[in-house]
Amino acid sequence: MSNRPKIRLYVDHALQAGQTVDLSREQANYLFNVMRLGQGAEVALFNGRDGEWRALVAEAGKRGGSLVCESQTAPLMLPPDLWLLFAPIKKARTDFIVEKATEMGAARIMPVQTDFTNAERIRQDRLQAHAVEAAEQCGGTFVPEVSDLQRLDRVLSDWPSGRSLIFADETAMGRSTLLPELVAPDASGGGWAILIGPEGGFSTAERERLRALPFVTPIALGPRILRADTAAVAALTLFQTRLGDWR
Amino acid sequence: MSNRPKIRLYVDHALQAGQTVDLSREQANYLFNVMRLGQGAEVALFNGRDGEWRALVAEAGKRGGSLVCESQTAPLMLPPDLWLLFAPIKKARTDFIVEKATEMGAARIMPVQTDFTNAERIRQDRLQAHAVEAAEQCGGTFVPEVSDLQRLDRVLSDWPSGRSLIFADETAMGRSTLLPELVAPDASGGGWAILIGPEGGFSTAERERLRALPFVTPIALGPRILRADTAAVAALTLFQTRLGDWR
Repeated sequence: MSNRPKIRLYVDHALQAGQTVDLSREQANYLFNVMRLGQGAEVALFNGRDGEWRALVAEAGKRGGSLVCESQTAPLMLPPDLWLLFAPIKKARTDFIVEKATEMGAARIMPVQTDFTNAERIRQDRLQAHAVEAAEQCGGTFVPEVSDLQRLDRVLSDWPSGRSLIFADETAMGRSTLLPELVAPDASGGGWAILIGPEGGFSTAERERLRALPFVTPIALGPRILRADTAAVAALTLFQTRLGDWR
Repeated sequence: MSNRPKIRLYVDHALQAGQTVDLSREQANYLFNVMRLGQGAEVALFNGRDGEWRALVAEAGKRGGSLVCESQTAPLMLPPDLWLLFAPIKKARTDFIVEKATEMGAARIMPVQTDFTNAERIRQDRLQAHAVEAAEQCGGTFVPEVSDLQRLDRVLSDWPSGRSLIFADETAMGRSTLLPELVAPDASGGGWAILIGPEGGFSTAERERLRALPFVTPIALGPRILRADTAAVAALTLFQTRLGDWR
C-alpha cells in the first residue's frame, strides 16, 4: 500500500493514462485549502468503474483545478452482488449504516419504509455522499448506489426472481445464525440481500409475510438485541466470511 | 419477551423477591418525568449479578422514589471471557465502540494508548455510563467493566498467562480471517481478547512486537480498510459465532 497516494478522491469522470480531470469547487477546496496540496502532488482517483489511478496536480486554483492521470494503482474490485435493505432511523445512525455498508462491501444500499419506520423521506443525495466518503476512506474502488426510500411491501412485491433475502429477525433468538442456514456459496444464482429491521422491530404482519416468502431466510444474530447499525455490520460480516469477498 | 417489562434499568443494588430498591434522582427523573410511569408500573431491573427482575413502582417522587422486586424474569447471562482492547479515537466513535462491545457481548472493555493514539486520557465514568445504557437497551443482564486508559506496551508486558489475543492487523489483508485460524473453541483455556488498532494503524515497532508474542494471533478483516468501530463489531461477530455465545 505504501506506493499508493494517501489522499483518495472519487470523481465522476473516465480515468485512463494521460487523462485530465477537472475538479469541482468542493474538490479543489478540499485538496488545495484543507489538505494544502500543491502542483505536482499525488492523489489517488477512482470512479467506481476504472479502478484506482495515481494522478498528479496539474493546476491548483482557489476555485478549481485539474489533475492528470498517470498510472493505474489498483484494479476495479466489485463487491459481491449483495443489497443491504434497512429501515432509516435517527439521522446519525442512518449515516453510520450507509458508511458501514460501504466499508463492509455491499453493492447497493436500499432504505425501506416499514410499518414501524418513522421516516417519511430521506436525503438520498446526502446519504450517497456518505457512501462516496466511506469508499474514499476504506480504500475501495467501488461506490454502492444508495436508493431513494421505498416501501418494504412494494419492494417485496417487485422482488427480482432468483435473489435470496436474508432477514435479520430479532424474534428468532436461540435459533441458528447465518452460517449453517446458507448451505452453499452458490445457493443463490441471482444475488443476495440482507434486511435489517427498524429499532422497534417488524410488525406481526410484516414478519408473517417475510417468513412465508420462498426467497426469505430468517437468521438470528445472537442472544442480545442489537441496534440496527450493529446488526447491519454483524450480518454483513457473516455474509462476507461465508459467501462474499472475505473468503 | 412479551412478559418482560419494556423499561429496563440497571441498579447497583442486590435484587431478590420483596427487595426494595431506592432510586437515584436521575433514575427517578427518567422513570417518572421522561417515561411518565406512575405507582404500580412495571420496570425490569438488573444489576449485572442477579439476572433480570420485574419490579413495581412503590413510590414515585419528583426527586426520588422506590421500586419493589417481584420475580425474576431472566437469569444472569454472562458473556464469554472476552476482552476488547481498542485505541480511543474521536469521541463519538469511542462511545460507539463501547456501546457495540456491550451489545456484542464483551466481558471487559479496555481502552489502550498506542504509538499513534492521540488520546492522553478518557472519561472512564462517561464510557462506563454508555456501557450501562447499552446493556439496558440490548436486553443483557451483564454490564462490561470499562477500564481506565492504559498504555498498550504495559498491557502486553503484564499479559495474563493463558489468555489469547486476536490482533486485527490491517496489513494482513489477503491472509485468512479469524475462522480458520482459531482451530478449536477450547484452544484458549485462559480466555480471549481482541485488539483493534487506531485509525492510523499500529506503528512498525508495535506490529513487530505483537506478531512475535506467542499468545497473539493476527487476523485480517477483509479486503477493505475498516474504521475502528466497524472492525470492532466485525471481529466480535466472528468471535461470537465461532467461539462465543452466538453458537
